[in-house]
Amino acid sequence: MTRVAVIGASGFTGLELVKILINHPKFEISYVATSEGETSLTALHPALTDVFDAPVAKADAAEIAEAADLAFLALPHKASMGFAKHLLERGVKVVDLSADYRLELATYEAHYCPHEDKEHLPEAVYGLPELTREPLKKARLVANPGCYPTAALLGLLPFTPYIDSDFPIFIDAKSGVSGAGKKCTQTTHFVTINENIFPYNPLVHRHQPEIAEKLQKQSGKRFDINFVPHLIPVTRGEMVDSYMLLKEEIDPLEVLRDFYKEAPFVRIFEKPVDIKSPSGTNFCDIFARRSGKKLYINSAIDNILRGASSQAVVNANLMCGYDEALGIPVIAYVP
Amino acid sequence: MTRVAVIGASGFTGLELVKILINHPKFEISYVATSEGETSLTALHPALTDVFDAPVAKADAAEIAEAADLAFLALPHKASMGFAKHLLERGVKVVDLSADYRLELATYEAHYCPHEDKEHLPEAVYGLPELTREPLKKARLVANPGCYPTAALLGLLPFTPYIDSDFPIFIDAKSGVSGAGKKCTQTTHFVTINENIFPYNPLVHRHQPEIAEKLQKQSGKRFDINFVPHLIPVTRGEMVDSYMLLKEEIDPLEVLRDFYKEAPFVRIFEKPVDIKSPSGTNFCDIFARRSGKKLYINSAIDNILRGASSQAVVNANLMCGYDEALGIPVIAYVP
Amino acid sequence: MTRVAVIGASGFTGLELVKILINHPKFEISYVATSEGETSLTALHPALTDVFDAPVAKADAAEIAEAADLAFLALPHKASMGFAKHLLERGVKVVDLSADYRLELATYEAHYCPHEDKEHLPEAVYGLPELTREPLKKARLVANPGCYPTAALLGLLPFTPYIDSDFPIFIDAKSGVSGAGKKCTQTTHFVTINENIFPYNPLVHRHQPEIAEKLQKQSGKRFDINFVPHLIPVTRGEMVDSYMLLKEEIDPLEVLRDFYKEAPFVRIFEKPVDIKSPSGTNFCDIFARRSGKKLYINSAIDNILRGASSQAVVNANLMCGYDEALGIPVIAYVP
Amino acid sequence: MTRVAVIGASGFTGLELVKILINHPKFEISYVATSEGETSLTALHPALTDVFDAPVAKADAAEIAEAADLAFLALPHKASMGFAKHLLERGVKVVDLSADYRLELATYEAHYCPHEDKEHLPEAVYGLPELTREPLKKARLVANPGCYPTAALLGLLPFTPYIDSDFPIFIDAKSGVSGAGKKCTQTTHFVTINENIFPYNPLVHRHQPEIAEKLQKQSGKRFDINFVPHLIPVTRGEMVDSYMLLKEEIDPLEVLRDFYKEAPFVRIFEKPVDIKSPSGTNFCDIFARRSGKKLYINSAIDNILRGASSQAVVNANLMCGYDEALGIPVIAYVP
Repeated sequence: MTRVAVIGASGFTGLELVKILINHPKFEISYVATSEGETSLTALHPALTDVFDAPVAKADAAEIAEAADLAFLALPHKASMGFAKHLLERGVKVVDLSADYRLELATYEAHYCPHEDKEHLPEAVYGLPELTREPLKKARLVANPGCYPTAALLGLLPFTPYIDSDFPIFIDAKSGVSGAGKKCTQTTHFVTINENIFPYNPLVHRHQPEIAEKLQKQSGKRFDINFVPHLIPVTRGEMVDSYMLLKEEIDPLEVLRDFYKEAPFVRIFEKPVDIKSPSGTNFCDIFARRSGKKLYINSAIDNILRGASSQAVVNANLMCGYDEALGIPVIAYVP
Repeated sequence: MTRVAVIGASGFTGLELVKILINHPKFEISYVATSEGETSLTALHPALTDVFDAPVAKADAAEIAEAADLAFLALPHKASMGFAKHLLERGVKVVDLSADYRLELATYEAHYCPHEDKEHLPEAVYGLPELTREPLKKARLVANPGCYPTAALLGLLPFTPYIDSDFPIFIDAKSGVSGAGKKCTQTTHFVTINENIFPYNPLVHRHQPEIAEKLQKQSGKRFDINFVPHLIPVTRGEMVDSYMLLKEEIDPLEVLRDFYKEAPFVRIFEKPVDIKSPSGTNFCDIFARRSGKKLYINSAIDNILRGASSQAVVNANLMCGYDEALGIPVIAYVP
Repeated sequence: MTRVAVIGASGFTGLELVKILINHPKFEISYVATSEGETSLTALHPALTDVFDAPVAKADAAEIAEAADLAFLALPHKASMGFAKHLLERGVKVVDLSADYRLELATYEAHYCPHEDKEHLPEAVYGLPELTREPLKKARLVANPGCYPTAALLGLLPFTPYIDSDFPIFIDAKSGVSGAGKKCTQTTHFVTINENIFPYNPLVHRHQPEIAEKLQKQSGKRFDINFVPHLIPVTRGEMVDSYMLLKEEIDPLEVLRDFYKEAPFVRIFEKPVDIKSPSGTNFCDIFARRSGKKLYINSAIDNILRGASSQAVVNANLMCGYDEALGIPVIAYVP
Repeated sequence: MTRVAVIGASGFTGLELVKILINHPKFEISYVATSEGETSLTALHPALTDVFDAPVAKADAAEIAEAADLAFLALPHKASMGFAKHLLERGVKVVDLSADYRLELATYEAHYCPHEDKEHLPEAVYGLPELTREPLKKARLVANPGCYPTAALLGLLPFTPYIDSDFPIFIDAKSGVSGAGKKCTQTTHFVTINENIFPYNPLVHRHQPEIAEKLQKQSGKRFDINFVPHLIPVTRGEMVDSYMLLKEEIDPLEVLRDFYKEAPFVRIFEKPVDIKSPSGTNFCDIFARRSGKKLYINSAIDNILRGASSQAVVNANLMCGYDEALGIPVIAYVP
């Protein structure tokens, strides 16, 4: 058994991590913490009553290092790198769910804040297994992708050889409210989002450079990514619709099937996907259609599982030499 | 034209007041305020853009007295009585949407806080027109009922001669989230209430004594009211289901039709009501069914209109000698 | 007073027509029909109880011609042209809410079915007042636009001089479920769409050629329209997000403000719009942002008002010589 | 391994059965059928793609008997007894999720239709493990309880010694729309139930006699059950609020804890419950509060799991000699 710590257990992604780890055959939750501590898992999440409980400590790097072999950091950006560096120095593997290790230094500092762990940043592996499976097996620090980049990249990566990079790629994304976090704000007030939909940060969202950077790394080409996210009145789930021009008239479903023929967590559909089918699972569901040289890609994930916590556990599986699919949820929250 | 002030314009009931008053043929909005001021109505409520705008002042009793003949106070309890007394002293009529003047002194102080306007409390008229239409015509201070008491009382009042008061009355109520106010809390977070329902303050909610006191005033009898409110995942609307024992086997629909034969804003239905049909209007829709001596009453209102703002304008109509129905919304937000 | 008939009163748009016409100062509902008849408005729509009622006949062209000066046809396509021709022959003005008179003959027959009223098709005026205000004043047959084309065209029309027509325009649209009609299908089942979102008919929806044809008529240029509609879990409201390339770096808000400076029912916002603010009204709310030569347009309407019934009444106002804004709803269904 | 058949796999409860059985360590799905057949599980439920598939046959008793040791019947009432009797004659154990074997003959025929399997009706065991655990271990025909009776009875059973049976028990229930089944009707149309709530069949619902009969069997006393169910705008989940008079002032939480001290699937909470916490699980969550001699019981379940499919698998576990909790879901669909 590998002993794992969940740091940041009070939020939505922290809860999802715990839910997966409870039944994982090789990971054992040995330490749970939040920034305040002094509580218990069932006090934070009453739905776990009679299922699983553990004391929740105030997060402390030395204690984590003693208690765990690997730590999941479900913390806000900036707070995360403060912890990660101390854990790495103490020999603890880290899967960081924040943005802190996802980007090149310059890109990070342009969109977030000054980086405080330049020492470890270069060794961080971007945790999208379909893109970085082999490096993940040797990683000790993994940067778990953002939810939008996960769904967007899984749709786009197979097509980079065929996309006409002289034209922009437009990405119209829709996310459930859990993506906005557990904090109560005017935006997350029920009355604000119920019976509503609205875009936010159009063309200037921080996930735009993350998508662009990873596409460039994979393909060696620069793509002009234009990203508009929306909030929709659902709790979980995320849909990403991408629009672009192709250089040639390929069969998009064939391209997808070929690219993902060995991927256990990508499903290709012959008709448009929805967000319910992958909800509760680590699947990314993808459909695509071409009209002339115009390509439409339609991908859907569970934003707090494939877009955060279940992908984090897949990454941890790979880092620890386990099968990628071990203990990963595949049964959807349907109907 | 009667000049009216809306104090507390930033909340949901403040917005509804403005929406009604904009088109009212006899009321003219002459002053709008919040506790902070220094803004405008369209800044607070962008949906009013190009429809109606007005500067929003920091509420000041002297200014209100100069600008308006009648003031609607859409303020939290306690804050409200602080204003009302100064307005009344300056000759301004007041419709208070808070709890401050709804209850007898002892009841109020047992459930809220020490009362700070004992001078005017005795003259306050409870603003449920079906119960107090004549006194309202002479009132200068009206206490607008709570949303739950409005729907509960309109269902119960016709039956007080027939109810067996030796047995408790059980009231199971369901409210949309707008009833919890605009403040962002864990309870009003979309993720908390979406796909959910839960009771709160069962048997100890502050509206329980309000219902009991008004029933007693009308009938001279004491009824044992047991009230359990629930929050449901809708924005507006409120349903109240009441259960009790009768002394005799009356025809409940006949009793309702007879009691409300001249009420413009109560509709009696022969099958169960829903909350969509009265939403956007001042109607209270009521259905009732009897089984032996057991009576079930099913009433529905728009919680922020009949349960607050449109009822407040009906009360103001009566106080100012206008027709009760003048400018009151009756076209529902359907489908 | 102008006597008007509502044909197809059982559906959502029929109900909205009635709701607007009840309070219209110049239109008087003189005839109401469905394809079955033998009922009443309050039986079809209980929310109208105690507000407005009328017998509902089985639709008959001769009877309509006797009873009304103008008829609103809220019928399915094909059924609509069957009626319209008989009404026009009898001197009744027609506002047709179906697709039957929206398109050029060839386009119509390619996407719908053989046309059965080729005689009147050429005189039909497309009922988007911002595009065809003057012809509407003389029209006796108006084709009310589809909901998607309304929101898309109002966003795009101001920019046709600046758009690079060598590049496709991508339109990602999101509609509430009322747009799918009152018929019960697997798609409109609550469980299907609740907590979900999905695209349908991507790149092949019938509104795509409607948008393209009207843009070409206005600008003389052919644009390559690529349209992907989605269903979202709300009852009413529609958002249209359009993506394209510009020929020059214009200020999009200035272009919008200039184009709509005299339009009573278009509002320009400096930040992203939502679907709640225009719900219940005839407004189209628009925001736009440019990044380099890439343009993002974000428009929102109430799909069954501006996208159907309130726009139909605006058109009728113009056809009858009344002010365009007479009796048109502007107070939103907020919060 | 025990070979099990799922008959009626197209509906919501059929899907849930499959989802549980896929991962069950002792049950193996050996036959899947619907009334039409000629399809596959992933065609019926695309969310199962790449997870589990099986051909779906047209249900045939002889084939079932050959393929399976135990059959789950997720069929409409009446259809179910037609199958069950043939299966029992062929030695197949049956868990029937319909109403056909839940009631005494006279009660059944008064509320449903003439019974067609009077031979096996007497041996059917009512499948509420907290009430009938021992008989279930020997049963070959189990009648799975209705969803409302499950939640109502689990709340009421502990209190039967203390309830004053001279007074009525009032039960106000709220169910998600999945309880209305997959059939598309005006009631299940998204627009009907979204932003709405309404009661149906108040005081005359068929689950009323089921609750009364089982309470009488357990306690030997007749209780006067008055039941009012509501539909609420959520997909899954059910809350039951019960109101009654007590003979003495007991501590309700203590009574609950004592009664359920060995029940693995009942959780007692010290504050009101919600429907999210047990969703996705077989738990019934219960809270109760007393005021004088008035008792309020508040219970919540997942209507298609504890109210149907997971309870059916618990029953099958008991019938086959396995541990009651084997393979039963306990991790909730939260947040």
